[in-house]
Amino acid sequence: MALKFLTQKIAQAIDEELFSSGGFSVDQLMELAGLSVAQAITKVYDNSKYSRVLICCGPGNNGGDGLVAARHLFHFGYKPNIFYPKQSKKELYERLVIQCQSLEIPIVTELSNSSLTNDNDLIVDALFGFSFTGEIRPPFDEVIQKLKVTNIPPIVSVDIPSGWDVEKGNVNNHGLKPSMLISLTAPKLCANYFNGKHFLGGRFIPPGLKEKYELNLPLYPGTDQVVDITDLPSEKL
Amino acid sequence: MALKFLTQKIAQAIDEELFSSGGFSVDQLMELAGLSVAQAITKVYDNSKYSRVLICCGPGNNGGDGLVAARHLFHFGYKPNIFYPKQSKKELYERLVIQCQSLEIPIVTELSNSSLTNDNDLIVDALFGFSFTGEIRPPFDEVIQKLKVTNIPPIVSVDIPSGWDVEKGNVNNHGLKPSMLISLTAPKLCANYFNGKHFLGGRFIPPGLKEKYELNLPLYPGTDQVVDITDLPSEKL
Repeated sequence: MALKFLTQKIAQAIDEELFSSGGFSVDQLMELAGLSVAQAITKVYDNSKYSRVLICCGPGNNGGDGLVAARHLFHFGYKPNIFYPKQSKKELYERLVIQCQSLEIPIVTELSNSSLTNDNDLIVDALFGFSFTGEIRPPFDEVIQKLKVTNIPPIVSVDIPSGWDVEKGNVNNHGLKPSMLISLTAPKLCANYFNGKHFLGGRFIPPGLKEKYELNLPLYPGTDQVVDITDLPSEKL
Repeated sequence: MALKFLTQKIAQAIDEELFSSGGFSVDQLMELAGLSVAQAITKVYDNSKYSRVLICCGPGNNGGDGLVAARHLFHFGYKPNIFYPKQSKKELYERLVIQCQSLEIPIVTELSNSSLTNDNDLIVDALFGFSFTGEIRPPFDEVIQKLKVTNIPPIVSVDIPSGWDVEKGNVNNHGLKPSMLISLTAPKLCANYFNGKHFLGGRFIPPGLKEKYELNLPLYPGTDQVVDITDLPSEKL
């Protein structure tokens, strides 16, 4: 049974069920999502070589996952920096920022081209997730342009590569070209067009949801919150 | 520098700071605490031999950690059962129960002596934590009596062994005799009187708090949320 890749609509339906009938809070699932992102990074990018990690956070949940990942990366021995230009006024996000500030993780709202290339060993793209639709608005249009230039460090995308259509992939080459993707809960259809290192996070889906949506999720090893699905056979929904 | 063991007062002060200046929510820290409990259990009690785990949950935060641990133990391949006689009406706890129910983890409110011995390979004591004071009230007085009988499976205590004085240990032999203890954030003074397998969980303490309270916490390995401190030198506060 091949792993199922999700349409945007199904991904949203699963997300809603986790919060309604599943009883989860955003705090909880964001904590586990961010932890899985940080853990996947440790498996590919060792902190001795990729110490300086710039986490680029968008205005929504994907950005929140990035803020949580930054905190765990700090505890895993990395030196995270956060770029967070449009900061949410929601209480949860304000607390996630405080948590990073208490670790003295620098948070900036502007990206300079030179520092992007010279001051970072790795970039985490936590700009947009599976719920993204429409046009990319300022300042993120410019951010994505900057992140698309060559000679930047490898990019790790959270859930979907930012700028990609959730289902159709990197339409018109508008999006980033990450080296690694961490799909959350289940991969979205756009991941069919991704060829790099691919991890799955979200070890919290109840069996009932797995069956209802025929997710055919792989087994997670040990107590890991992520599983390497780079070479796993997949099936479009 | 030896690991510091905490008085009840200092443990409460650190806890309060994590929620106030640290910006954490109970949801977040309980998620990480419960995950660390489940992870520590996998390191000592393999799910092939210790599959059936009874998680005994008290009325407060320690019980909440137990509910989270039960969920992660399920995802780690164990068969958890929950004993939760005094269920909190707080929204978070009601959601933690729903999360376990969606995994079809049985939740009971009565303990029978025979099933305690025959139906379980491991017991998790998530009855009382570091904030416990005073007398143990019904039904927990009887529960602790039942858990003290011989021939029961090994007991893993969360934060402190239930029935123990947080600072003075197992006064008058009133408490449980666990085989394993998972201290959260930092060990409490009573852990000086504990001789079994000892883990520390709580990989989220900011450096400022570690310094302020001179915790001398050990390094956590890899991406683990727990560290084995069984043989670590310690120092009373």
